[in-house]
Amino acid sequence: MTDFATTKSMFELPDGVIYLHGNSLGPMPKAARARVDEVLDDQWGKMLSTSWNAAGWMALPTELGDRIARLIGAEPGCVMVGDTLSIKVYQALASALELNSGRRVVLSDNGNFPSDLYMADGLLRSLGPDYELRVVDPDDVATHITEEVAVLMLTEVGYQTGLKHDMKALTELAHSAGAIPVDLSGCKADFAIGCTYKYLNGGPGAPGFIYVAPHLRDRVRPALSGWLGHEAPFAFDLDYRPGTGIERMRVGTPPVIQMTALSAAMDIWDMVDIADVRARSIQLTELFIQRVEHSCPDLQLASPRDSALRGSQVSFRFTEGYAAMQALLERGVIGDFRAPDVMRFGFAPLYIDETDVEKAVDILADIIRNRLWDKPEFKIRQRVT
Amino acid sequence: MTDFATTKSMFELPDGVIYLHGNSLGPMPKAARARVDEVLDDQWGKMLSTSWNAAGWMALPTELGDRIARLIGAEPGCVMVGDTLSIKVYQALASALELNSGRRVVLSDNGNFPSDLYMADGLLRSLGPDYELRVVDPDDVATHITEEVAVLMLTEVGYQTGLKHDMKALTELAHSAGAIPVDLSGCKADFAIGCTYKYLNGGPGAPGFIYVAPHLRDRVRPALSGWLGHEAPFAFDLDYRPGTGIERMRVGTPPVIQMTALSAAMDIWDMVDIADVRARSIQLTELFIQRVEHSCPDLQLASPRDSALRGSQVSFRFTEGYAAMQALLERGVIGDFRAPDVMRFGFAPLYIDETDVEKAVDILADIIRNRLWDKPEFKIRQRVT
Repeated sequence: MTDFATTKSMFELPDGVIYLHGNSLGPMPKAARARVDEVLDDQWGKMLSTSWNAAGWMALPTELGDRIARLIGAEPGCVMVGDTLSIKVYQALASALELNSGRRVVLSDNGNFPSDLYMADGLLRSLGPDYELRVVDPDDVATHITEEVAVLMLTEVGYQTGLKHDMKALTELAHSAGAIPVDLSGCKADFAIGCTYKYLNGGPGAPGFIYVAPHLRDRVRPALSGWLGHEAPFAFDLDYRPGTGIERMRVGTPPVIQMTALSAAMDIWDMVDIADVRARSIQLTELFIQRVEHSCPDLQLASPRDSALRGSQVSFRFTEGYAAMQALLERGVIGDFRAPDVMRFGFAPLYIDETDVEKAVDILADIIRNRLWDKPEFKIRQRVT
Repeated sequence: MTDFATTKSMFELPDGVIYLHGNSLGPMPKAARARVDEVLDDQWGKMLSTSWNAAGWMALPTELGDRIARLIGAEPGCVMVGDTLSIKVYQALASALELNSGRRVVLSDNGNFPSDLYMADGLLRSLGPDYELRVVDPDDVATHITEEVAVLMLTEVGYQTGLKHDMKALTELAHSAGAIPVDLSGCKADFAIGCTYKYLNGGPGAPGFIYVAPHLRDRVRPALSGWLGHEAPFAFDLDYRPGTGIERMRVGTPPVIQMTALSAAMDIWDMVDIADVRARSIQLTELFIQRVEHSCPDLQLASPRDSALRGSQVSFRFTEGYAAMQALLERGVIGDFRAPDVMRFGFAPLYIDETDVEKAVDILADIIRNRLWDKPEFKIRQRVT
């Protein structure tokens, strides 16, 4: 059984702050500081370029990939860490399109991350006018799967409402990894991508990751054929030959300092059973919904009420949501706001517990009951800080 | 006049080490540690996601780009930092190809970085069989510029042959930025890309950069159309609209911790006149060549003798170069070896001075005169460390 009191103690959480924003940027693992300092002082500082091998820098992307694999139901050797989520989307999409050459449509839905749609659009425009990005309503996806569709690109957990899709060919896990158990092998996804700075707590701008199914990892041609994905990167051959399996999904030189912070976060994840995380996340989101609906009747639940359809995030609609969120931030409860009226709250069991949820709702209820955003003191405070 | 004694004092250089490998990974600026700790403790740790704006994280890529611009003769607002050199090559190449649609050949030479050729190959294969990567001998580049050529992709400092190309459409600056003065505006390059972990000392896996000429920066369509290159990234529109000018060359979330280390390095570069760096680099490489040729007659200069045709790196051929380099590393002189017989040494004036050059040559001469790599003590020492 995962010991969440211990995991909570391993994060840097400022006094007076209830951080319900781990779905945007996870907090810092306390150990990150010492780990990064070691890389700076002892490795970069003293061992210099010999650290690429001697300190294991070169192995980091594969090693981190295997540690993430455990959390998303992937076999070892199927996940590579690097670049950003956007680049990994492009990499997966380009590979998937080529595996289905002859088909020219990428099907997605309008609940997807816009950023994934942007990357798809950019790639398809490069490929020419025969290619099409078809974006439909989430409910209409199934009826649009025709023989023209080369790739189905879906986000497992919608970023606005937290709606959970069944997973398909190319699956976006930014809001799933570290939040809900994912079973990539079981659901036969071909590709998946995700980021590591949300629930995984890898730090600001932590790298993305890509999953390629075992039956494809030696078949895919990397469109982003970088030197570190080469079969023999240090042979400096003029011709590209893809590396073995998932290694071909490396592109350029890995950001070692950034990956070290992620590595400190993965030390915490290594202690955790993701099924426990999911069970606890459901408890916390249920508790939050129940209390908010009881204390703040003006707020309307925008996330699915059925926990089976929900990620680790809860959204409420409120006409004065923007002002209310400003007041919440002021009072140390960190969530965020998405136009026109959505207040979003993320619940990460690794460092959020029932007490936090109860306190957060008490503060929210007080703010709304007293319309604190209208008070002159609040406005003055807001200007000063 | 740049004060190189001061800049040298600002780097972490281990005792007993003469680091002639800054052309691979620059050493750590001493200030990097405190800067990175501040980002970890005060920003990520305490201010959490508010740091994106409050601590200036989001502005880092543009700000660092403008600081690098000064060193490469670029106007402000023409350089964006991010991703890796490989990704930036792809980004520039995809943009350049589209500006010259109708032409289908990317021309490069076999003295180019293989990694740039790999990225070009990957892109062109995605675009289809009409596209071709044509790789010729450096001397034959000029005669191959035909009407089929959409992009000429060259590395400014071709260290294998010493041919210093006039800069053309797409210029690779990895071995130029921070080593020689580059005049991107003057030479009318359309695109340039480079990395920041070599002479610029940004740290292991520090990001790449891309330059887009002023007349193109509002015209290019980004093939890697990431959300941070969107005109309004936080509007979460479903359609991509490129941001203003160089901002559209952003892709995903910037690696803040990694960029902070680079920022500490740029503080040193801000104190420096790149013309002084070049003048001093010539002094150091001349001194090295002269002393090596005097003390080690078995070594054959592989770099151009004419300093005008040379970057900041000197290569010598020696049949027992591999063993000699192992012995040098053992004795604290860090260079590197490239098959079959090339010993490479980089001279970065920011932290290498005449005394270092003289000491390095004395050690090299001693090793070669006594064939130290054959001695049993050496082999034993090598095994122990």
